[in-house]
Amino acid sequence: MGMTLGPNRYGKAEIRLVRVARDGGRHDLKDLNVSVTVAGDLRATHLTGDNAPVLPTDSQKNTVYAFARRYGVGEIEEFGLTLARHFVDSQPTIARARVHVEEYGWQRLGPHSFQRAGTETRTATVSYDGNAAWVVSGLTDLVLLNSTDSEFRGYVKDPYTTLPETDDRVLATAVNARWRHAAAEGDWGEEYAAARALLCEAFVDTYSRSLQQTLYAMGERLLAHRREIAEVRLSLPNKHHLVVDLSPFGLDNPNEVFHADDRPYGLIEGTVLRDDGPAPGLAWEAAWSS
Amino acid sequence: MGMTLGPNRYGKAEIRLVRVARDGGRHDLKDLNVSVTVAGDLRATHLTGDNAPVLPTDSQKNTVYAFARRYGVGEIEEFGLTLARHFVDSQPTIARARVHVEEYGWQRLGPHSFQRAGTETRTATVSYDGNAAWVVSGLTDLVLLNSTDSEFRGYVKDPYTTLPETDDRVLATAVNARWRHAAAEGDWGEEYAAARALLCEAFVDTYSRSLQQTLYAMGERLLAHRREIAEVRLSLPNKHHLVVDLSPFGLDNPNEVFHADDRPYGLIEGTVLRDDGPAPGLAWEAAWSS
Amino acid sequence: MGMTLGPNRYGKAEIRLVRVARDGGRHDLKDLNVSVTVAGDLRATHLTGDNAPVLPTDSQKNTVYAFARRYGVGEIEEFGLTLARHFVDSQPTIARARVHVEEYGWQRLGPHSFQRAGTETRTATVSYDGNAAWVVSGLTDLVLLNSTDSEFRGYVKDPYTTLPETDDRVLATAVNARWRHAAAEGDWGEEYAAARALLCEAFVDTYSRSLQQTLYAMGERLLAHRREIAEVRLSLPNKHHLVVDLSPFGLDNPNEVFHADDRPYGLIEGTVLRDDGPAPGLAWEAAWSS
Amino acid sequence: MGMTLGPNRYGKAEIRLVRVARDGGRHDLKDLNVSVTVAGDLRATHLTGDNAPVLPTDSQKNTVYAFARRYGVGEIEEFGLTLARHFVDSQPTIARARVHVEEYGWQRLGPHSFQRAGTETRTATVSYDGNAAWVVSGLTDLVLLNSTDSEFRGYVKDPYTTLPETDDRVLATAVNARWRHAAAEGDWGEEYAAARALLCEAFVDTYSRSLQQTLYAMGERLLAHRREIAEVRLSLPNKHHLVVDLSPFGLDNPNEVFHADDRPYGLIEGTVLRDDGPAPGLAWEAAWSS
Repeated sequence: MGMTLGPNRYGKAEIRLVRVARDGGRHDLKDLNVSVTVAGDLRATHLTGDNAPVLPTDSQKNTVYAFARRYGVGEIEEFGLTLARHFVDSQPTIARARVHVEEYGWQRLGPHSFQRAGTETRTATVSYDGNAAWVVSGLTDLVLLNSTDSEFRGYVKDPYTTLPETDDRVLATAVNARWRHAAAEGDWGEEYAAARALLCEAFVDTYSRSLQQTLYAMGERLLAHRREIAEVRLSLPNKHHLVVDLSPFGLDNPNEVFHADDRPYGLIEGTVLRDDGPAPGLAWEAAWSS
Repeated sequence: MGMTLGPNRYGKAEIRLVRVARDGGRHDLKDLNVSVTVAGDLRATHLTGDNAPVLPTDSQKNTVYAFARRYGVGEIEEFGLTLARHFVDSQPTIARARVHVEEYGWQRLGPHSFQRAGTETRTATVSYDGNAAWVVSGLTDLVLLNSTDSEFRGYVKDPYTTLPETDDRVLATAVNARWRHAAAEGDWGEEYAAARALLCEAFVDTYSRSLQQTLYAMGERLLAHRREIAEVRLSLPNKHHLVVDLSPFGLDNPNEVFHADDRPYGLIEGTVLRDDGPAPGLAWEAAWSS
Repeated sequence: MGMTLGPNRYGKAEIRLVRVARDGGRHDLKDLNVSVTVAGDLRATHLTGDNAPVLPTDSQKNTVYAFARRYGVGEIEEFGLTLARHFVDSQPTIARARVHVEEYGWQRLGPHSFQRAGTETRTATVSYDGNAAWVVSGLTDLVLLNSTDSEFRGYVKDPYTTLPETDDRVLATAVNARWRHAAAEGDWGEEYAAARALLCEAFVDTYSRSLQQTLYAMGERLLAHRREIAEVRLSLPNKHHLVVDLSPFGLDNPNEVFHADDRPYGLIEGTVLRDDGPAPGLAWEAAWSS
Repeated sequence: MGMTLGPNRYGKAEIRLVRVARDGGRHDLKDLNVSVTVAGDLRATHLTGDNAPVLPTDSQKNTVYAFARRYGVGEIEEFGLTLARHFVDSQPTIARARVHVEEYGWQRLGPHSFQRAGTETRTATVSYDGNAAWVVSGLTDLVLLNSTDSEFRGYVKDPYTTLPETDDRVLATAVNARWRHAAAEGDWGEEYAAARALLCEAFVDTYSRSLQQTLYAMGERLLAHRREIAEVRLSLPNKHHLVVDLSPFGLDNPNEVFHADDRPYGLIEGTVLRDDGPAPGLAWEAAWSS
């Protein structure tokens, strides 16, 4: 009975880097959570414990901190590209690297004072194989809510259906969006601000017949305005707001009082693709691909 | 060997209420997490299982939703007062009630569209005993950071001290502040905005020799500007940002690259009191008082 | 307008200490989360930033690790006593110390191999003021469930009551128990095992008319069997298991299929006291007492 | 500029089902978290808001509860298969279904009394496309620790390497394992107990030169003993236990006192495949495949 080592990889996850850039008395702040993953021919260490091909995850962590000092951080896509290229190009045993960066937002309160801002996290995932690089930008936990202009009707009725149709409901979600770039270069900061605004605008001004429809509208809006983006992937939990039945207390409830329920929740996921975009290559490399 | 039932109480925790107020096409949103606690003579149910004195926690929950429809929500201090008074005044077996409300912030994106805003939670804790009412307002998880103008020197050196003195460090915390009012009435919304701003300002403009000093400065600022507040309690975790030693890589690190550490963390807690303020009564009633 | 510094304290929270005791090839493991809090006359640092009275929280952390090596850990109550006494007795500016220890359980798989066991955490909170010491032991997150022998009837009906009475329901909770000792010495390990068993047994063999009744039975059981315990405090969330209405699908549901709901939840808190026990002193010192 | 709807799917996530099976006075308990995902031709709802092809996620939730009553739960793999087949076979618009089930363990304390046991969660992921079904079983959060017999040496040294080689360290991880079956039938309960034991045994009795080596040993052990398993995927965080430097206090530290660090952590992921196993089909269908 034969066995084989299949796809594998390793790295250092959740390196919590804060970078202060000092320009005289005025400081700037970058607050990041960096995860590095590398892959290559690691049969030796798996099969015999020979660590000759292994760059320790501790050294990966050191590299992240040292590069933050040497090169600064800049936009997270750039920082990820610099790191991913370094690992593959400097290490013969590393064939591929992926760097995933989360950035937490801060709002300025003074020349060197800041306040954590917003609930969302900006993300970038950079993949590099020694030749090509792929960049996916995104955000998570951008929580949006429309208190009207959402309905849900005309769906399949099966023996297990009890949900009444509605022409007016609360629609709320925590946006998880990732967009793949046609090329590994761009004006990342300007694009992020624009992409975030486009996603919000599409959510706000779409009269929604289903969260799927809203999802597609958000992806379409992004592609329509940003030529550099080839694909958008959205994962939208349906954060249910249940109308509370107040009739036992002699009260009506014209969509005013809701219970915000935790679980279960709907989960709607979808992709919008530009027809003439390039192939994704390793951009979406699943955690388990080699 | 005798035993006695000591202090006890019960209630419904974490009622997730969302209230939409509709004024034509323009909506307003209140997003709350309400916890009710009541106490009275509950020996019967503890000792014999006789539930005659028990108002079910399910009814407490219903009351919260019904009152949101009947009276609206308004400021959370008012909503808490209305609920606390109702439970004690309408139920002979309830001698005291406490209502704790957390409010999550939303930013307007359109007439009926909103985005979750900020990381902090506004809080109000209202206590009522049938005669008097006490109101404590507050906030949690307001994350602030100064990237300079903080030092830590001149402290006790004991055999277990290895920390070097520093005249320049990052000072970061997640503010947990509660302020007790001299009276159970006020312009709660105006006050909250002002109190939040005062806390931020004191954090920003205090040159800090210790987090204790900053804490006192924040409490003092609040009392100095708001006559209606009798006492401020602050709990400030010291969110350590550790300077990474880059010397092994031939790099200096002039307070630019930090590791944001998770645990352990310092925790600084203190109170600032107005000398001529009223006694606290039940305002700070610990979870275990009767 | 005068202001005063009120109650205050500080310390290092969540020191994650793992201690391996090696007895030849056979190892033992202690996995702790230690939080230290000290208090004394700290007006200087609050008012002027003079840190002369301040033992840094970093030194407190070092002390915890050094003591684990020098004295071992043993039972967490003993470890807490050793630390609390050290801080007060060695530092003139520290008048009181409190050490709170959480211990995570591990099950042995081999001479030096272990598996995390159980969901509950054992706790000890030790307070010391230079003269007396107080010890509170406890546990959290011990999740228990009875699938029958629980009812809830005969309660107050008010205009907001919709809950139907039931003579058969699921009763589930996550036990948070703390018990205060009459003296600061004992056979802590033996007692903990016994106390944990007594709490479980009382939960299991009490036919419950309310969670309050079960709470009292648990506290009473502990006091009845352990003379060294003067007081028990229990905080019991009522983890609601809602019977799902299957009638729309032509199915009955004789208490077999439940939705385990997250929020809101009931919260029942109570104390059982031995009549002839000593006064609590600083044992329950609330976070905000001085 | 053309755009296309790419891969998409939807469903109800985290349905918290507790099933009590009553056999006279003796009860059995199943505590599950069920997530349903379905896919098919959903262009209409995405592009025009026409919900004719949509089976509401609310109906999916109802189906889970109803099936728990009608058919019982049994082993989670069976429950998943029954549900996945139902959705595809009964709904013309659903081409594929995936059911992911998490099961929480309970230990018996009495005929109808239980205590939550262990930290790990048993999992099953079932996929079905109208013809074939694929079953992946697994577990998460099984936390294991060896306090010796682990070394890490002979790795790449680059300019960012500071980690000293060690021939004795603590090796700790939270096992996340998934194993794919060659066929969609089996004695699931017996297999799960055996698989869990094999993973633990391989962790315990492997002298580890790297976590990669331990990972491969665990996968190999499972395949060697269970012919029905075609593939094992393991994701192993390296939960770092850092030796505390006690030399400033005049103490040595022969691997006895550790700081259990939170972040960053190593993350080692790998696959072990049986050479003659069947192709995976949809078993590992990534979240974003159609």
